[in-house]
Amino acid sequence: MKINWSGRAHNYSSADVNYLLKIIKKADPMTQGYYLKKFQKDFSDYIGKKNVFAVSSAAAALEIISALLKIKKNEEVILPAHTYCASAIPFARNGAKLVWADINFDSRTIDLEDFKKKVTKKTRAVIIVHLYGYAVDFRNIINFCKKKKIKIIEDCAQALGAEINNNKVGTLGDFSCYSFHAQKNITTLGEGGMLFVRDQNLAKKVPGLRHNGHSNFKFKRKYYWKPAMGNVDSDIIGQWPFKFTLSEVQCGAGIRMLKKLDSLNNLRIQRARKIIDKLSNFKELKFFNPNGKRRHVYHLLSAYYKPSKKINRDDLINLLNKKYKIQSVIQYYPLYNYDLFKKNGFGTANCPNTEKFYNNMISFPFHIWMTVTEIKYLISSISKSLKILQKKR
Amino acid sequence: MKINWSGRAHNYSSADVNYLLKIIKKADPMTQGYYLKKFQKDFSDYIGKKNVFAVSSAAAALEIISALLKIKKNEEVILPAHTYCASAIPFARNGAKLVWADINFDSRTIDLEDFKKKVTKKTRAVIIVHLYGYAVDFRNIINFCKKKKIKIIEDCAQALGAEINNNKVGTLGDFSCYSFHAQKNITTLGEGGMLFVRDQNLAKKVPGLRHNGHSNFKFKRKYYWKPAMGNVDSDIIGQWPFKFTLSEVQCGAGIRMLKKLDSLNNLRIQRARKIIDKLSNFKELKFFNPNGKRRHVYHLLSAYYKPSKKINRDDLINLLNKKYKIQSVIQYYPLYNYDLFKKNGFGTANCPNTEKFYNNMISFPFHIWMTVTEIKYLISSISKSLKILQKKR
Repeated sequence: MKINWSGRAHNYSSADVNYLLKIIKKADPMTQGYYLKKFQKDFSDYIGKKNVFAVSSAAAALEIISALLKIKKNEEVILPAHTYCASAIPFARNGAKLVWADINFDSRTIDLEDFKKKVTKKTRAVIIVHLYGYAVDFRNIINFCKKKKIKIIEDCAQALGAEINNNKVGTLGDFSCYSFHAQKNITTLGEGGMLFVRDQNLAKKVPGLRHNGHSNFKFKRKYYWKPAMGNVDSDIIGQWPFKFTLSEVQCGAGIRMLKKLDSLNNLRIQRARKIIDKLSNFKELKFFNPNGKRRHVYHLLSAYYKPSKKINRDDLINLLNKKYKIQSVIQYYPLYNYDLFKKNGFGTANCPNTEKFYNNMISFPFHIWMTVTEIKYLISSISKSLKILQKKR
Repeated sequence: MKINWSGRAHNYSSADVNYLLKIIKKADPMTQGYYLKKFQKDFSDYIGKKNVFAVSSAAAALEIISALLKIKKNEEVILPAHTYCASAIPFARNGAKLVWADINFDSRTIDLEDFKKKVTKKTRAVIIVHLYGYAVDFRNIINFCKKKKIKIIEDCAQALGAEINNNKVGTLGDFSCYSFHAQKNITTLGEGGMLFVRDQNLAKKVPGLRHNGHSNFKFKRKYYWKPAMGNVDSDIIGQWPFKFTLSEVQCGAGIRMLKKLDSLNNLRIQRARKIIDKLSNFKELKFFNPNGKRRHVYHLLSAYYKPSKKINRDDLINLLNKKYKIQSVIQYYPLYNYDLFKKNGFGTANCPNTEKFYNNMISFPFHIWMTVTEIKYLISSISKSLKILQKKR
């Protein structure tokens, strides 16, 4: 047996595929039509909020958020360094100073106390990343942020369906983004994303920002064709619109998979808990054991491996890879260590937990299409590896 | 009978659909895999140039070009005002001053003499837009631009397959973009684009710019997983990477449609010529009659309607719409008239031909899926309308 890291989130059923076929064969228009509206409506119903907009990626959603915020040069955006780079790039593009917050060592997500310490008069926004599908309970900073006029952006790229006290993630902040990329819990044929904007007036600006500034003329037209089919405009001077539209067939895939999201997530949760439980005797391997009123959707299955003097995480990855053909990886290199951020002046941080977790974490393959047999093989291989390493510690 | 403006470029055959089905069901990864490579290879073979990159849209290709050029504030980019807004936005985003060139009244594309007049010491680039599928023969400005270090960007969004003296459009300039949007001659399921970069060193930077800066580490790694699966970098300080990836199934659609492109374009050309020929007795309606060694792919079927004192283009659109249920439109509102460009300081221009053509042009529905009967109906309805209007002129 062999378990590779995969670039495929799930399989589509025959019924899903037939639904997509109809769109491929018949949809007119093939982009920005019926299925876009329906996907947005369904998604809105799912999270229980209006003002949701399907876009080409979660990164695209963040670009639009950055434009809506009119981030100015040297205004500060605070975000955890332990995340994927796309959380940071759109704000840096607009000239923001990126300020790295540390993570809480247990939850592996932003340390809200460290965030507070790093707030200055220039702080415009904080990005709460619900990494790994772990819901960050940030309710106790909402008033703090309101007072200081700091906008809360929830990055739910990995956490669609996770909950905080019965609120879906992405619904308590000012803005949020979701991802339907190939590896996410559900995917719109490999690429896609969703944007939520709380403020009604800002939300009105999104369709134009998403599609090259297309909007209605502010005057009444005598002819449908004059002066043009529509206006091109932006209410935000200096912020130019984008081309972030999601095609009809991708929206169709979203419509289908959204119906299955809860059952897919339940299966993930059940499997993750089983694996964590079966490995609970190994005290050197620490999964995140969430408590409180939260639902975590286990986009990834990662753990901290406590090193001894002789044996560390790399030995575990190596053993799993060589002996059991199980391809584990490390996520995430602290962003300030990447050349992109170093070269652009964001190469320093005070994030000890981020460092410690990065140096000792392992992310196991954990794809929803894995069979029961493969899950069993994963558990037994990790167990065997840990036992082998225990003798060498 | 009724002919609406459509948002669907063409129909997919059963064989095409089966090909796409296989990708939907089996592709792993679902983005950035085998089909991306194959699509790029096939496209490269088709235009006869290396360094082509599939992206999420033609606008995305232009964003990457703008980043590669490292356009600085107030550097000038010259482009025709008679084009779609996406030609301009990416350069404006980077701070370029947009300088509007007029069009040649007959060809409806950039007036190369007017371009030369508008060149200053600050001119960094010129955008040659092969609008309507008309190939612009710009060979006589290539040396001029080289001397003045002005980069030539070809916007081939509407012109894939058009030729200049047996060179495919997009292969004579420094950069070019192509579109596979829903309405284009071929579409990758509604959204998609392609980028060509002549310079080998600049081309190397594209995969990173396309995908959040992902690139290889410059040092040799001991472990595949450390420090991370890959580096995140950009060689261009201050230019941040994007998320402009095209999914595998979209690349698959591109692979299939590229095989049919020439036959689809030939059918378009044949039909356009027939319509133009059948309407040639109406001297008040002027289509573009290309001459010289060029192949035009008639993405659109537009004409200049010479107004009389009493009757103008709006009467023709109105009559076709009301009496014959044929939905014609106007393309394109001069970009400097849109609120987006006005508000950002690009609201003035000296482009008399652009004005005159805009005020008197009509674009007829001309979709490849139209039946022979519909084409006949289109011709006869235009004829009848022109005759009715002739009596009133």
